[in-house]
Amino acid sequence: MSTFGTHFRVTTYGESHCRSVGCIIDGVPPGMELTEDDIQPQLTRRRPGQSAITTPRNEQDIVEIQSGTEFGVTLGTPIGMLVRNKDQRPKDYGNSTMDLFPRPSHADWTYLEKYGIKASSGGGRSSARETIARVAAGAIAEKYLTLSHGIEIVAFVSSVGPVHMFPPTALHPTPSANPAFLDLIETITRETVDKFVPVRCPNEEASKRMEKEIEEVRDDHDSIGGTVTCVIRNVLSGLGEPCFEKMEAMLAQAMLSIPACKGFEIGSGFGGGEVRGSKHNDPFVVAPEVPPMETGASRNGTKRPKLTTKTNNSGGIQGGITNGAPIYFRVVFKSAATIGKAQETAMYNGEGMGTLEAKGRHDPCVVPRAVPIVEAMAALVVMDALMIQQAREQSRRVLPPLKKKDPPNGEKSVGVNGV
Amino acid sequence: MSTFGTHFRVTTYGESHCRSVGCIIDGVPPGMELTEDDIQPQLTRRRPGQSAITTPRNEQDIVEIQSGTEFGVTLGTPIGMLVRNKDQRPKDYGNSTMDLFPRPSHADWTYLEKYGIKASSGGGRSSARETIARVAAGAIAEKYLTLSHGIEIVAFVSSVGPVHMFPPTALHPTPSANPAFLDLIETITRETVDKFVPVRCPNEEASKRMEKEIEEVRDDHDSIGGTVTCVIRNVLSGLGEPCFEKMEAMLAQAMLSIPACKGFEIGSGFGGGEVRGSKHNDPFVVAPEVPPMETGASRNGTKRPKLTTKTNNSGGIQGGITNGAPIYFRVVFKSAATIGKAQETAMYNGEGMGTLEAKGRHDPCVVPRAVPIVEAMAALVVMDALMIQQAREQSRRVLPPLKKKDPPNGEKSVGVNGV
Amino acid sequence: MSTFGTHFRVTTYGESHCRSVGCIIDGVPPGMELTEDDIQPQLTRRRPGQSAITTPRNEQDIVEIQSGTEFGVTLGTPIGMLVRNKDQRPKDYGNSTMDLFPRPSHADWTYLEKYGIKASSGGGRSSARETIARVAAGAIAEKYLTLSHGIEIVAFVSSVGPVHMFPPTALHPTPSANPAFLDLIETITRETVDKFVPVRCPNEEASKRMEKEIEEVRDDHDSIGGTVTCVIRNVLSGLGEPCFEKMEAMLAQAMLSIPACKGFEIGSGFGGGEVRGSKHNDPFVVAPEVPPMETGASRNGTKRPKLTTKTNNSGGIQGGITNGAPIYFRVVFKSAATIGKAQETAMYNGEGMGTLEAKGRHDPCVVPRAVPIVEAMAALVVMDALMIQQAREQSRRVLPPLKKKDPPNGEKSVGVNGV
Amino acid sequence: MSTFGTHFRVTTYGESHCRSVGCIIDGVPPGMELTEDDIQPQLTRRRPGQSAITTPRNEQDIVEIQSGTEFGVTLGTPIGMLVRNKDQRPKDYGNSTMDLFPRPSHADWTYLEKYGIKASSGGGRSSARETIARVAAGAIAEKYLTLSHGIEIVAFVSSVGPVHMFPPTALHPTPSANPAFLDLIETITRETVDKFVPVRCPNEEASKRMEKEIEEVRDDHDSIGGTVTCVIRNVLSGLGEPCFEKMEAMLAQAMLSIPACKGFEIGSGFGGGEVRGSKHNDPFVVAPEVPPMETGASRNGTKRPKLTTKTNNSGGIQGGITNGAPIYFRVVFKSAATIGKAQETAMYNGEGMGTLEAKGRHDPCVVPRAVPIVEAMAALVVMDALMIQQAREQSRRVLPPLKKKDPPNGEKSVGVNGV
Repeated sequence: MSTFGTHFRVTTYGESHCRSVGCIIDGVPPGMELTEDDIQPQLTRRRPGQSAITTPRNEQDIVEIQSGTEFGVTLGTPIGMLVRNKDQRPKDYGNSTMDLFPRPSHADWTYLEKYGIKASSGGGRSSARETIARVAAGAIAEKYLTLSHGIEIVAFVSSVGPVHMFPPTALHPTPSANPAFLDLIETITRETVDKFVPVRCPNEEASKRMEKEIEEVRDDHDSIGGTVTCVIRNVLSGLGEPCFEKMEAMLAQAMLSIPACKGFEIGSGFGGGEVRGSKHNDPFVVAPEVPPMETGASRNGTKRPKLTTKTNNSGGIQGGITNGAPIYFRVVFKSAATIGKAQETAMYNGEGMGTLEAKGRHDPCVVPRAVPIVEAMAALVVMDALMIQQAREQSRRVLPPLKKKDPPNGEKSVGVNGV
Repeated sequence: MSTFGTHFRVTTYGESHCRSVGCIIDGVPPGMELTEDDIQPQLTRRRPGQSAITTPRNEQDIVEIQSGTEFGVTLGTPIGMLVRNKDQRPKDYGNSTMDLFPRPSHADWTYLEKYGIKASSGGGRSSARETIARVAAGAIAEKYLTLSHGIEIVAFVSSVGPVHMFPPTALHPTPSANPAFLDLIETITRETVDKFVPVRCPNEEASKRMEKEIEEVRDDHDSIGGTVTCVIRNVLSGLGEPCFEKMEAMLAQAMLSIPACKGFEIGSGFGGGEVRGSKHNDPFVVAPEVPPMETGASRNGTKRPKLTTKTNNSGGIQGGITNGAPIYFRVVFKSAATIGKAQETAMYNGEGMGTLEAKGRHDPCVVPRAVPIVEAMAALVVMDALMIQQAREQSRRVLPPLKKKDPPNGEKSVGVNGV
Repeated sequence: MSTFGTHFRVTTYGESHCRSVGCIIDGVPPGMELTEDDIQPQLTRRRPGQSAITTPRNEQDIVEIQSGTEFGVTLGTPIGMLVRNKDQRPKDYGNSTMDLFPRPSHADWTYLEKYGIKASSGGGRSSARETIARVAAGAIAEKYLTLSHGIEIVAFVSSVGPVHMFPPTALHPTPSANPAFLDLIETITRETVDKFVPVRCPNEEASKRMEKEIEEVRDDHDSIGGTVTCVIRNVLSGLGEPCFEKMEAMLAQAMLSIPACKGFEIGSGFGGGEVRGSKHNDPFVVAPEVPPMETGASRNGTKRPKLTTKTNNSGGIQGGITNGAPIYFRVVFKSAATIGKAQETAMYNGEGMGTLEAKGRHDPCVVPRAVPIVEAMAALVVMDALMIQQAREQSRRVLPPLKKKDPPNGEKSVGVNGV
Repeated sequence: MSTFGTHFRVTTYGESHCRSVGCIIDGVPPGMELTEDDIQPQLTRRRPGQSAITTPRNEQDIVEIQSGTEFGVTLGTPIGMLVRNKDQRPKDYGNSTMDLFPRPSHADWTYLEKYGIKASSGGGRSSARETIARVAAGAIAEKYLTLSHGIEIVAFVSSVGPVHMFPPTALHPTPSANPAFLDLIETITRETVDKFVPVRCPNEEASKRMEKEIEEVRDDHDSIGGTVTCVIRNVLSGLGEPCFEKMEAMLAQAMLSIPACKGFEIGSGFGGGEVRGSKHNDPFVVAPEVPPMETGASRNGTKRPKLTTKTNNSGGIQGGITNGAPIYFRVVFKSAATIGKAQETAMYNGEGMGTLEAKGRHDPCVVPRAVPIVEAMAALVVMDALMIQQAREQSRRVLPPLKKKDPPNGEKSVGVNGV
């Protein structure tokens, strides 16, 4: 379905050739300052046409809040938002090769199999425009997370095709084993990432090689994929719901729901399957004293946990629940399906093969534009988990304290609120 | 929460030291033959104590259906099931090192942070016993999928630590590019996989090396992880719900919700980010005529799709929707957190460091036992997606046919039920 | 939350002074003809300003479909819809009595208690404008129900204040015991109901008296409530989900969610608690042969049930599941809270009492305008239940037939698909 | 489906002739003392066989907690519970009149229409035994509500057949207009209600007449219905979710989901449709100072609202949100369908009519046993609404305070957290 989240519940609509794309967010906390200015920047980062190596269309994608705020403050009621489509007219079809052939590895064929009706855009909701609503919703979640808990979410491009920012080495087979990587995720900011537009890989040398790769691909009328790495800092401990809504499970669903995403790994990820427990385990250490951040939560008396981990192969999550350390994960996007190069493929009607050449200019590499989408989906996951846990904590806080008692049969006392 | 699925909705309960673990399944189709005999085999495959290299406890894990069937036939009402715990008594604590120290990379600490109360087992619902209910529910889903559509789900161990069944080579950097792998997933059966118990890697040579790796790890009081690969064959086209419940997104959530899982990739996966679109795209070809399977659906007139793909980098899914080709994916499990080796770590109370040595014997490698769990979760995902799509198709089937009409403004006719 | 339904899932947004009110409907069957013309008529019936006895504002309430259709046919993707608010500017406050006093029996006070923030309209989402989205969504559900199964939903005003269309008599203490009532619900149409605009009570004499009552109330700057009776004809048997989503339970939730609704009764309702089982029970009779309706379902082979009931005290529902007989129910709306008459009441700030006189002209009786809202909510309930049941039936249809078998222990054969 | 609630989510299973009936509750707050002793009393009140006028079977209905607690304290993980059925063996059929005829107004026929399979008990989950799980879950909710907020829920029988505790009079046409009724709901306790077992109508004279009515009905092999009135005291203001999950809407769904329930009215209810706004509106008054109750919430600083209402026609709810005044409502139950009296009715197979005489002894009036079921469902509704509102409040509490600012265009300051 088109709904994500339980407490902070985002429902989206819209495809390529309709009047608008948009969403309704139910569950936004009341009393938060919010205007379109909080949302537009991420939409602009997602927008096509940001450079010579992205698709040259220059859509505006201006968001309009429909409801749920007054005088720039959230009411706690659903926020409706929409972004108008410039080209609203569904396209006629029947007279181009794209009408005869489902695009290989695109959603044209599967949408027809699913719905029994062919939208003029082919892939219907698989359109990249669908992600506009995600980014808009994510921006609101993110504002809350920052105001209340100082949470920071930063994603960046970590590879384009075969060009990696942290290529495997004998010493550091995976990024999570690489101190340079671990340092980076402690400090990287969006400002830094955007200094490397259009590629958004925060490394001078790798960024250059990636740009070159994309140019070659573009000139070849082809496409290329890559990976995005994302870090979430200052997350509270205790977020994530056993058993099926573990933090990493919800992040995985969120990421794999982004068009063209083919894989997800948390913390040490696939590399973590190769090392022994004695090396992979993250020992606990006493958390250093740090001055509290100036957040709504710290004013409210929320404290950071007493312990932290010495290493972070877990990626900030243990047993599906956050431990307060940075959450980091990596997602992979395949090369875009729509390419200018000629492809031999079967016709819709099953009556034979032919050659498809997609017209127009296409994005040779969508990965840099995926950065704000990954951030948005991460924000939605954390927001929902935070609200669920806040509900639990509040439900516990209003219970009377347990009577000090000996458990039955002379057993030791039960360890509530501590050991 | 502890519920998975929307139409075939599984809700589970139970931790290590309670009376039983179990589940309720709402939405089971009525009129299907079902007894405990359909469920027990997968529970037995999941069970500890299957060999010298797994944990030597020999629990029985006998499932009891509580409701929802009569005379061995489903009524369509909720099926309650339970498996009794042998050791029901919550453990006293306070007198062993495991009570003073949260186990590194285990859920002991995060459960305490989340719930503010320490269960005697430490990690509460992060216990492997929680997966019993998943396997039981998955077995029912699987029976339906097989009876109705001939769907087959087979998982196997594809690596243990650094030992891979399909190691990357210059020619075949990833398994999905390897013809031997693609052949295997077309034919592999559970019977074949179980010939390679205890490792469940269906390759004589790799299996031996994996067994040796596990023995070394065991003798070292350590633990090791690995990967499981799973294939789902004979899936209908059209399954998977845009935008947030894409087939791969739900599989990713399902897999990352399994304890110790750290990553998921569908089809070409992480390797798919490295090759260009012209190579990665799966061209369509006309599907070969095959005799229909003897299934409930084929009796009912359901047909296989007209087209299929020549290659299968997509892993059977395009735009989040199945295309009828085999779905295959790979998941990684980290090494188990509980090890006998001494570990330096902080105390619960934050008052200093110490040495933790877990007593008892632990599973040096849980990956072979994860095989039926992966199959079960895959079955739950496919079952739910199938039921949603069946609902959609039936809702469309009872609509009157569209009037043949010219679209407004002289545009071509709309392509309903075909092009 | 602002979402209703599971399969046909409606999510709404909007309050009085925002840009627009609207909704997203997820789960609309693909391949159905649909344009704004299918939706506007019910919005127009709901609209204020239809006569001298309703509020004289003349808003237009024009619906705009944003997504989910192309060339007038549904795609199966979410339908976004909106209706612009004419007066978008949130109102300043602080200088009228309505800013000092929460209106008695209105939502001003409880919204402030709930959200901690005062919207300029006072009661936020309790505004009657919120019901626009319900009516728009209901119209789409209704179109499907009619096309596929010939289902008809008709509501009418059955009382205004103390004036009843079917007042209790010694012989017929409740309408459900009154043959005139039972005849009416078999035949009443919307066209007939609208002949009695502005009151929408399909009885010449009662309608006149109701109109007079409303005029008196209006002239007295007061308000009055009443009841709406609704019938749903041609519903399939088998709809409604045990245990918590029984058909009558979902209707009750739907109706009590309409602003100002204070009660609901199905079939014999409160009167049914007074008669004995031997009189209240509806005996089964063999259903008469009737020519099949020209619906999508009848083309598809769906048959009417073999049995029907002789009487219908059950209101078409037994055990929470429809039996194919007409569903009928009655709902009561209280008098509107906002009245011109002076009221002594406390100030928001708790500092004392004062006199509140609401300015402007208000609807003296909202009951006639509630008619399309009741119909819309009924349509949403039936639509959702129909889709769930269609899913179940389809899931059963693709199972192989049960083996003819003797139940264990020599018991008789199990009665699948018959007795 | 068989799930109720969003935060405090109860999923039930079980029918008459299966091994057990039970439920899983997800979302129980951690750190609350809980044992079977907290649950059993309400199960015992629900049990058949409490007197000569209820069904003489004497089942034990002993609840067993399966999970989610240790040493008598909740862990925050799902609580599994079950009650074993004494007679587990599904009944053979084919040789009694009850196998040939669907019972009039029972669920036998509709279950068969819905599921296409006939359970041995006929009506499957419509069995009264299904309510056991509701009562067990409700008892846990209730314990929390009492401990945390001092909430009290008391239901009682207000009519049996035509015998009413508060019959309509010229002066007091409805109970809500009757001062004796309003006094009663302020003070009535379960202890008082149970002094009037077996009828549970807390009025000496009415109770006697009701008992006599039931005896007559019993001797006549017939059945009779009645009404239950329920009050919920000490509810916080702010509970209930616009728009579709208004407090009264959820109560209505909850009540109409109880077997045999045919109607629901909140506050003034159907009577409220007959009086004018100026009389029906509940003016606000400053709430009197009262010493805080000794609850978890009052320790936590939660305050009672500043205002209350002078009258309470609203039944404690305005705009779907509680205002802190007592919530009271009335529900009606029809006479039980299974009666010993002979009934002419059609056969399952549609081949003609015949006479059905139900064997065994049946409950002539289920209304007294419905009392704890009504209380349980009320507790589930309030619990869920409380947890949602606690989540919202906590989400707002951790936001930084709004900057004092002038709204745009010289408008007055926005009224956050007050007027």
